[in-house]
Amino acid sequence: MVNETQHTCSASSSSRSDGGSSSGSESSKDNSRCSTPVLDADRHERLREKMRRRQDAGDKWFSLEFFPPRTANAAVNLISRFDRMGAGGPLFIDVTWHPAGDPGSDKETSSMIIANTAVNYCGLETILHMTCCNQTKDDITGHLQKAKRLGLKNIMALRGDPSGEEWEEEVDGFNYAVDLVKHIRNEFDDYFDICVAGYPKGHPEAESYEADLRHLKEKVFAGADFIITQLFFRPETFLKFMKDCQAIGITCPIIPGIFPIQGYHSLRQLVKLSKLEVPQEIKDVIEPIKDNDAAIRNYGVELAVSMCRELLDSGVVHGLHFYTLNREVATTEVLKRLGLWKEDPRRPLPWAVSAHPKRRVEDVRPIFWASRPKSYIYRTQEWDDFPNGRWGNSSSPAFGELKDYYLFYLKSKSPREELLKMWGEELTGEESVFEVFTCYITGEPNRNGYKVTCMPWNDDPLATETNLLKDQLEKVNRRGILTINSQPNINGKPSTDPIVGWGPSGGYVFQKAYLEFFTSSEIVTALLKVLKKYELRVNYHIVNVKGQNITNAPDLQPNAVTWGIFPGREIIQPTVVDPVSFLSWKDEAFALWIEQWAKLYEEESPSRMIIQYIHDNYYLVNLVDNDFPLENCLWQVVEDTFELLNSATQQ
Amino acid sequence: MVNETQHTCSASSSSRSDGGSSSGSESSKDNSRCSTPVLDADRHERLREKMRRRQDAGDKWFSLEFFPPRTANAAVNLISRFDRMGAGGPLFIDVTWHPAGDPGSDKETSSMIIANTAVNYCGLETILHMTCCNQTKDDITGHLQKAKRLGLKNIMALRGDPSGEEWEEEVDGFNYAVDLVKHIRNEFDDYFDICVAGYPKGHPEAESYEADLRHLKEKVFAGADFIITQLFFRPETFLKFMKDCQAIGITCPIIPGIFPIQGYHSLRQLVKLSKLEVPQEIKDVIEPIKDNDAAIRNYGVELAVSMCRELLDSGVVHGLHFYTLNREVATTEVLKRLGLWKEDPRRPLPWAVSAHPKRRVEDVRPIFWASRPKSYIYRTQEWDDFPNGRWGNSSSPAFGELKDYYLFYLKSKSPREELLKMWGEELTGEESVFEVFTCYITGEPNRNGYKVTCMPWNDDPLATETNLLKDQLEKVNRRGILTINSQPNINGKPSTDPIVGWGPSGGYVFQKAYLEFFTSSEIVTALLKVLKKYELRVNYHIVNVKGQNITNAPDLQPNAVTWGIFPGREIIQPTVVDPVSFLSWKDEAFALWIEQWAKLYEEESPSRMIIQYIHDNYYLVNLVDNDFPLENCLWQVVEDTFELLNSATQQ
Repeated sequence: MVNETQHTCSASSSSRSDGGSSSGSESSKDNSRCSTPVLDADRHERLREKMRRRQDAGDKWFSLEFFPPRTANAAVNLISRFDRMGAGGPLFIDVTWHPAGDPGSDKETSSMIIANTAVNYCGLETILHMTCCNQTKDDITGHLQKAKRLGLKNIMALRGDPSGEEWEEEVDGFNYAVDLVKHIRNEFDDYFDICVAGYPKGHPEAESYEADLRHLKEKVFAGADFIITQLFFRPETFLKFMKDCQAIGITCPIIPGIFPIQGYHSLRQLVKLSKLEVPQEIKDVIEPIKDNDAAIRNYGVELAVSMCRELLDSGVVHGLHFYTLNREVATTEVLKRLGLWKEDPRRPLPWAVSAHPKRRVEDVRPIFWASRPKSYIYRTQEWDDFPNGRWGNSSSPAFGELKDYYLFYLKSKSPREELLKMWGEELTGEESVFEVFTCYITGEPNRNGYKVTCMPWNDDPLATETNLLKDQLEKVNRRGILTINSQPNINGKPSTDPIVGWGPSGGYVFQKAYLEFFTSSEIVTALLKVLKKYELRVNYHIVNVKGQNITNAPDLQPNAVTWGIFPGREIIQPTVVDPVSFLSWKDEAFALWIEQWAKLYEEESPSRMIIQYIHDNYYLVNLVDNDFPLENCLWQVVEDTFELLNSATQQ
Repeated sequence: MVNETQHTCSASSSSRSDGGSSSGSESSKDNSRCSTPVLDADRHERLREKMRRRQDAGDKWFSLEFFPPRTANAAVNLISRFDRMGAGGPLFIDVTWHPAGDPGSDKETSSMIIANTAVNYCGLETILHMTCCNQTKDDITGHLQKAKRLGLKNIMALRGDPSGEEWEEEVDGFNYAVDLVKHIRNEFDDYFDICVAGYPKGHPEAESYEADLRHLKEKVFAGADFIITQLFFRPETFLKFMKDCQAIGITCPIIPGIFPIQGYHSLRQLVKLSKLEVPQEIKDVIEPIKDNDAAIRNYGVELAVSMCRELLDSGVVHGLHFYTLNREVATTEVLKRLGLWKEDPRRPLPWAVSAHPKRRVEDVRPIFWASRPKSYIYRTQEWDDFPNGRWGNSSSPAFGELKDYYLFYLKSKSPREELLKMWGEELTGEESVFEVFTCYITGEPNRNGYKVTCMPWNDDPLATETNLLKDQLEKVNRRGILTINSQPNINGKPSTDPIVGWGPSGGYVFQKAYLEFFTSSEIVTALLKVLKKYELRVNYHIVNVKGQNITNAPDLQPNAVTWGIFPGREIIQPTVVDPVSFLSWKDEAFALWIEQWAKLYEEESPSRMIIQYIHDNYYLVNLVDNDFPLENCLWQVVEDTFELLNSATQQ
């Protein structure tokens, strides 16, 4: 009677498997389970488990390699690239280790900080490379401890290129990658997943191909979990290598490293560094077109696609690792043609999750940071746990010094000149600020012909979901209700809805309508009169930069504004309007006027004074319509407010 | 601009008032707030605060006094009376202290246990009386500690009647109620709310009315929170007393004790005990009708109503305390005529809340005990906290010994003879069991002409909500799907809905359809085949008495089956289908077959063997239809199962 697909458990309740919900045990009290329903196993597995699960499911995957950039600006761009390429669904990314670039430091461009950003702020499963030669044990342990503290869970253990003329083995030193593997396992037990490098043609410095294979086996037996190979040019090179590995007892996953040729010079440089030989048939094609970048790239894509197809068709390859050289186009093209690029519009939660292990239980956030998730993660990075995401008094991080704004992952992607074009070289009054907001909403060019694609509170164009409200938003922004965040009400749409859906399929998602804006004290006075009519239905928080706060929230409790019901689960309520965190958000939201906008202009200039005036005198307002099954009444609230103002003016 | 009705708080988030949600601070971690949304301030206030809030709101209230019964059967009846009279909305009840009846013991009939039951199992705010004369300090401290441990929060501090011929003051002993008040405040600080007795005519043993008032003032100044008076016959007696109290500086609430005359003899006895004199005008009416109980009771009701009206109309009386003599009719009648009896169909949560202070954060329960809330409270009484109500492994109380069933508050209200009439003097096969279930559902008399008003799993007739499913339930019970618990699906009905609503107004409540039943292994085999068609939509748990458990619940997570969305609140999900607690419930549900039903019959009798057969061979099944916005598919699942069985039979 018991069917294979059914779970069967034995009589005693104590025999309940702890596998599935083991995540709970860490944070739960002794006599209860974790309060976080496990929505997404993915968030709770380690990389090697994910790899195994995908392989078992016959599900092909890919991963992407990046190197740390040289400048802070390049770092900002790389992080946008992480976000864009992350959308295609890599199983992981990895960040190389540049001994010359102070890789373990806190510099914006260090390997450590780039990997940290990928994990924590972009939510990507990330492997940090680490080399060991010419380093002391203490250095290495220090790097590993720091990586662990930052939430990194995977290390690619490498020897690295010896510096200096003549490299000599040090006794008891780190001479080979295997020493690093052993050290990690000794000092950190099973905490890290460890990856090591494989050389399909043998390491250039190895005595022989066979000797190199034996070294690889040593690394695996010392505790490595999987292997990524050096690039190669022919699929048979990899397939032979894999067979040879298996023949000597290497059974862990071996992932081929794919290098789509993207240009003549980058190929030559790489070949020089890796001491590989480019096969004659490739040279024959490339040499004649070496000055035609597009032609070479097209050829590189073709070549990579055909090699990848052959590898995947072999049946023994389940994942492909791409050497991106920090470029986007060629790799994305190859992945799309292979059908591996899977932009999944479904989100596990309505906000961007972080991949830090301690954040895997995070399941609630205040709505305020909806467009600034990286800022939210930054400001809560010291939290030790995420108890339903509610901010207590003591958990409100004081809004830090202004340097926070200059943290590269919070910086605007656009340079000053572009911002000035979008937001106005010269402002003539509050009205010209209204215009900027309106143009951002409509997507129409401003009076100087430039599109406004970002705002201080939102570094990206309007979200698809917000687009649902576009017409109303335009109308109110024109009149000085300067909206920075909003969501429509949703009364039970399928969780697979491409615009508002999130979470596993088979569920239903709900929202209360939300509207957040800056506006003048004159409008606030009228608004408060209007709000009396909506007492139970609309909750509001109204605050100015000094912190004068007017609200009708009962007992200052959070108000759930996004929630979902799923088969066989508890209710998930990932977004709340939280009165405590709103006062922290207020500091950030007002500061953005000055830091991102006013400071574009000279001190004492009229433009700067206009922004300063708004900063000093406007209110930040948020409104929630609690009656989600009815038509959103917030537009009516605003309409009534304008009417009241008009009638007052006419009297 | 700031309106009086709005909360205004100052700039810093740390200045957030802790008043409203102070309840959270106890159980919350340092950097978070309590996970329990405060749905009902009532659950979090102490009695004196509730009293003040009601008085401030101009909201009149009443309270009820009971004495502990002599026998266990009488205790079962008294507890049903608590449930019925509790429905009228008393602010509190109180339980008198009978020194002769071992009042602090664990006996079913002790004052302590009756008060414990009222608080924990009936959810009533309760005052336990306590007398102090002829008792040691240690005795008294022991009683108070026990009361605190059981969740009692209010004590009526009394001297009690001295035993023995000649009572003499003991040096350093407890000679007067004031000593007890002082002792409570010394030893328990502000934990208890303390009530003391006032004598509108002066205590019979006091030197004078004035001297007695001074004693009363001493008791209040020693720490009493309010006063309940001895009974009196004329409103002016009380009003004068109140004025006299105020004149000497007694400012706490003074609650008049009302005694509706219910019979000639009880009046005479009470008068004798309290040494009061019945006014001539009352004697004149009563003496001629002293043998006509109904006439006396009618007169008593009239008299009480008119006295209460006068007291309430005086403007100084906000609450009335009734000496019920453990009877229901007269007091209820008076309260209804005064308009104080308020059966509020709105429930704070969809299950009966307990008034134990540690349970005030309880906000989730498994659905299984829906009809046996007292059993659920009993089985979780040792829990120290209620972390979202989820049962972890270690929190599953092993299902105890059979004596649990004999705990008086879990006993059936019906005697054996009645049960036999309802459930059959003699069973002839499984079919006759099906019949009993069917009659319980339909409300039709059984073949012997008796209505089946209770079942082993449900001591009360079918709930109004279940009635919505009556037709379908009848059909399936006839065919051997023996239902013991069910709820319809609800897609967003107003929280004020008289049948399925709960929680504060302005909200919406939701349910997933639920069906729980016993059935034969033959039906289970067919059911499992049918369920494959409903894989994602229907979650099931199927278990037999030995604990063989078949389920498709993901990771054994709880499934929320009742939830509510309210203005300005987080989501409340008070009922779950919890896989861990289901295995505990299973033990109880199967045991009820034997303990409540099989044991009605002689050992080895055919009737007993039929029930034993069902107990040993049937399965307990629960089904949840996750797709709450669609029509409940569980009836179709059952229909398909019967069809499959039929077609199998026909082949």
